[in-house]
Amino acid sequence: MIRAIFLIQADDKKGLLASTVGFFYEKGYNILKCQQHTDSYEKRFYMRIEIDASDMKETRKELEDGFGEVAAREGLNWSCHWSDYRMRVAILVSKASHCLYDLVSRKLEGELSCEIPLIISNHPDLEIAANQFRIPYYCFPVGDSKAEQERKIRDLLKRFDIDLVVLARYMQILSPEFTDEWQGKIINIHHAFLPAFQGANPYLRAYQRGVKMIGATAHYASEDLDQGPIIEQDTVRVSHELTPSGLKEVGKDCEKRVLANAVKAHLEHRIIINGGRTIVFPVER
Amino acid sequence: MIRAIFLIQADDKKGLLASTVGFFYEKGYNILKCQQHTDSYEKRFYMRIEIDASDMKETRKELEDGFGEVAAREGLNWSCHWSDYRMRVAILVSKASHCLYDLVSRKLEGELSCEIPLIISNHPDLEIAANQFRIPYYCFPVGDSKAEQERKIRDLLKRFDIDLVVLARYMQILSPEFTDEWQGKIINIHHAFLPAFQGANPYLRAYQRGVKMIGATAHYASEDLDQGPIIEQDTVRVSHELTPSGLKEVGKDCEKRVLANAVKAHLEHRIIINGGRTIVFPVER
Amino acid sequence: MIRAIFLIQADDKKGLLASTVGFFYEKGYNILKCQQHTDSYEKRFYMRIEIDASDMKETRKELEDGFGEVAAREGLNWSCHWSDYRMRVAILVSKASHCLYDLVSRKLEGELSCEIPLIISNHPDLEIAANQFRIPYYCFPVGDSKAEQERKIRDLLKRFDIDLVVLARYMQILSPEFTDEWQGKIINIHHAFLPAFQGANPYLRAYQRGVKMIGATAHYASEDLDQGPIIEQDTVRVSHELTPSGLKEVGKDCEKRVLANAVKAHLEHRIIINGGRTIVFPVER
Amino acid sequence: MIRAIFLIQADDKKGLLASTVGFFYEKGYNILKCQQHTDSYEKRFYMRIEIDASDMKETRKELEDGFGEVAAREGLNWSCHWSDYRMRVAILVSKASHCLYDLVSRKLEGELSCEIPLIISNHPDLEIAANQFRIPYYCFPVGDSKAEQERKIRDLLKRFDIDLVVLARYMQILSPEFTDEWQGKIINIHHAFLPAFQGANPYLRAYQRGVKMIGATAHYASEDLDQGPIIEQDTVRVSHELTPSGLKEVGKDCEKRVLANAVKAHLEHRIIINGGRTIVFPVER
Repeated sequence: MIRAIFLIQADDKKGLLASTVGFFYEKGYNILKCQQHTDSYEKRFYMRIEIDASDMKETRKELEDGFGEVAAREGLNWSCHWSDYRMRVAILVSKASHCLYDLVSRKLEGELSCEIPLIISNHPDLEIAANQFRIPYYCFPVGDSKAEQERKIRDLLKRFDIDLVVLARYMQILSPEFTDEWQGKIINIHHAFLPAFQGANPYLRAYQRGVKMIGATAHYASEDLDQGPIIEQDTVRVSHELTPSGLKEVGKDCEKRVLANAVKAHLEHRIIINGGRTIVFPVER
Repeated sequence: MIRAIFLIQADDKKGLLASTVGFFYEKGYNILKCQQHTDSYEKRFYMRIEIDASDMKETRKELEDGFGEVAAREGLNWSCHWSDYRMRVAILVSKASHCLYDLVSRKLEGELSCEIPLIISNHPDLEIAANQFRIPYYCFPVGDSKAEQERKIRDLLKRFDIDLVVLARYMQILSPEFTDEWQGKIINIHHAFLPAFQGANPYLRAYQRGVKMIGATAHYASEDLDQGPIIEQDTVRVSHELTPSGLKEVGKDCEKRVLANAVKAHLEHRIIINGGRTIVFPVER
Repeated sequence: MIRAIFLIQADDKKGLLASTVGFFYEKGYNILKCQQHTDSYEKRFYMRIEIDASDMKETRKELEDGFGEVAAREGLNWSCHWSDYRMRVAILVSKASHCLYDLVSRKLEGELSCEIPLIISNHPDLEIAANQFRIPYYCFPVGDSKAEQERKIRDLLKRFDIDLVVLARYMQILSPEFTDEWQGKIINIHHAFLPAFQGANPYLRAYQRGVKMIGATAHYASEDLDQGPIIEQDTVRVSHELTPSGLKEVGKDCEKRVLANAVKAHLEHRIIINGGRTIVFPVER
Repeated sequence: MIRAIFLIQADDKKGLLASTVGFFYEKGYNILKCQQHTDSYEKRFYMRIEIDASDMKETRKELEDGFGEVAAREGLNWSCHWSDYRMRVAILVSKASHCLYDLVSRKLEGELSCEIPLIISNHPDLEIAANQFRIPYYCFPVGDSKAEQERKIRDLLKRFDIDLVVLARYMQILSPEFTDEWQGKIINIHHAFLPAFQGANPYLRAYQRGVKMIGATAHYASEDLDQGPIIEQDTVRVSHELTPSGLKEVGKDCEKRVLANAVKAHLEHRIIINGGRTIVFPVER
């Protein structure tokens, strides 16, 4: 079954639910799922609507244009996604392999519905892993010029028609130009429960502060380091028995899980970004 | 603000969402929240819709009758609840006090919006607790005739206009007549992660089986012991360091939390029962 | 059974375990529990040892003095506690009642083994709650002089022979003199997952930052606000569906649980403080 | 550093801790870690002791024989393990790949310290995965004779000097002869929170029962299906929004994590089996 997914947000007002639902109903589409949330604090309306687009009596463009008219009238901010398009994901890594293995194996198992046409790194270490999965591996050491290195990466992303960049423990800070161009299209995993322990060495600092739980945070990359909209977080209980390196090892599992869930939510068009916050609609399957 | 909450279920078919939403829209009501779920496995449609009923231009009966017509046409099973009515809750206890203290203090803090006009027990032990909170306490020892004791309780529930019965570690099995009459209106807390460890002494059996987590389950009481529709569950990690009585103590916290969440969901009209399963819409506030 | 509990810490060196265990063994005491941890990062040795002191052939002082000699020889930092002494706990509150109700009801249920001889507040609101439980309530409004108000509290704590002060959502900052005098004897509950959201209004800031989990932290009070050694933390998953006040309500449960677990660990002599960190030995029962 | 790990259990009696600790102390070994637990319900003593064996002044056999004498005198059941031996693990699979990928990648990342010299299956499906990691893959379809197929597997396990068999979603029941011969050396992952939903199709039954959490259980295989000693469990919250296949997908993550933790505990010699229960000492690192 081909599905069309509409992500919608707007300032809240009376009748938004009825007019959007009504649009699809009048055209005879079957609404498969409708998830709606009104944020009473910010007076903001959010909606994810999924319709059966298997036997359309109009073109995709006609449907989108038609909805565009409703949206213009009602002041909706919206996007439309089609279930038969598989997003193209580039994974950026440095030396740590756990998130890479996790993402690629989830893709192979069918849990992440996407293409992974390339892996990019600033170190040669993980080429072996890439080869195991027959995924092209591009290694651009930072070397003398970080700007030059970043330009090469951005060129490659374009050449490969990439839709989403996943920073799977890529230990370089991206330039504002990069994050601007790819706004809402770069997912990073931070190995701490943000906003605690922003910046470097979170496990050492967690040890020193004596916290009883550690966590991980997946977020969209933004100009300000570790400040982008949070997509997913999780925590795991730790005890005094773990040293900084013990925390690091225990944390890996949390990082993998959190990053994978965030990427999955993005691939399934379940995320709406509003300023510094995200709305992540729960899975239904 | 006065709100009307409609809980709706039906066999799934095209257009259910649009026709229900449309009904309220055409009458000019503001839809505050709309939570909808289609179970694609059972082909069943579930919906909770909350509207602003502060300045109604019709009587409550007119609104309900109007919706009743839509429901009849569309084959909806539904109920309507009004936010300005506070449900009347009877708490049944035996000797353990933790759930009783927890429920009553949550009520005092405003977390549970209800009246608790009486506490009923088969033991005198908790009369002191009831007195602390100035709640009438009725003690009916089981004695010779369990049927007679139960009849007294059921009389009292009617006399006090009770809407919901909470078995807060009430250690007596109810007769099928009782559970039938009060179907969907008795919430029990079982001190195990059902369906594991149904029946008596779950903590001892959990110890013997060497489980690494224990849990608690709140469910509607049904004729078959520990078989009613589950409302809420939670688990807590335990280690080999706990004996059966240690498990029991650790489990109390889980029982309190699970029971309170289940009662809250019922009071907030967030639960739809379909056969042996429940749909519990998440809190939005 | 009367038990003596020794809490021990020292810089790690060979033979510490053997010499401490040997001391009790040679005197013929039965070791009920022995929990030991060596922090390989800080090279620090920690130990909690619990012995059966029911039929002692020496006085308590003789046992303590004897162990003191071993400790002096081995360079141990230690304390000894006797299971037949019930600590005297003062609860300080402001207006929020949930932690107060929770602590008092856990005490009544026997979960917290202590006396609660008084409740102190800067507001009159919770006198009713204190009366329900027949606990004296002292109200000292901050008024013109915060120093004067604090002096009254500290006098009262001495007059009542208090061993532990619990800040159960007491919304005043304590002076360095107070926290110094009571070092390691004041437990505070912070309504956030420290070190995230230190300071005021954590739930609002959690909403604004769009975190996907909120938490609570119990810690010993220190001169620097929200910086004292952490005893216990927990988190709870939240969604975009909660406003700041929704987060606050959901967080209450977490606060109660975390504070109660921290107080319990203190009362059971399971905590060793070393600088800014705590070692909390797990429950065995 | 080479370490020797002793796992010890015995009926509890006075002086066990002192005599075991004393043995190593008198011989001049440095005790790196000592984890001890006395089960007051079963009156059973458990201990894991880890010593620095880098510069031994005796042979390994002499140390073991020496301890054997203490053990005979004190009635200890014990085993000794050396940190420089890497266990040889055979992974048995059927068609599901998620646990296989997870285990192998954790091994590659250094999280699981072992050899994986072969993968065995009753289906050809996962040969590709095995090839990616250059691990020999043996496929024995069940065909006409299950006994014959099992004999081939058991021969292979011997030929490859296997120490531990991991059933990574291997969908065949093993014969009592197999589980007897390999007692305490076969770890299985069951895709439910045992003892709930023993047997087949746990996710479908979880859906039908309407549980609010699902789980996974890793246990040693025993003659009775799904009855062996539990090593590790975990649960994950689910909602009414998941169909049986949705539960299955969500559960995969839990299965992977639980199985990996169980295998890790076994490889690190942190598990003591006593009848139907396990003692799993926590990680310290």
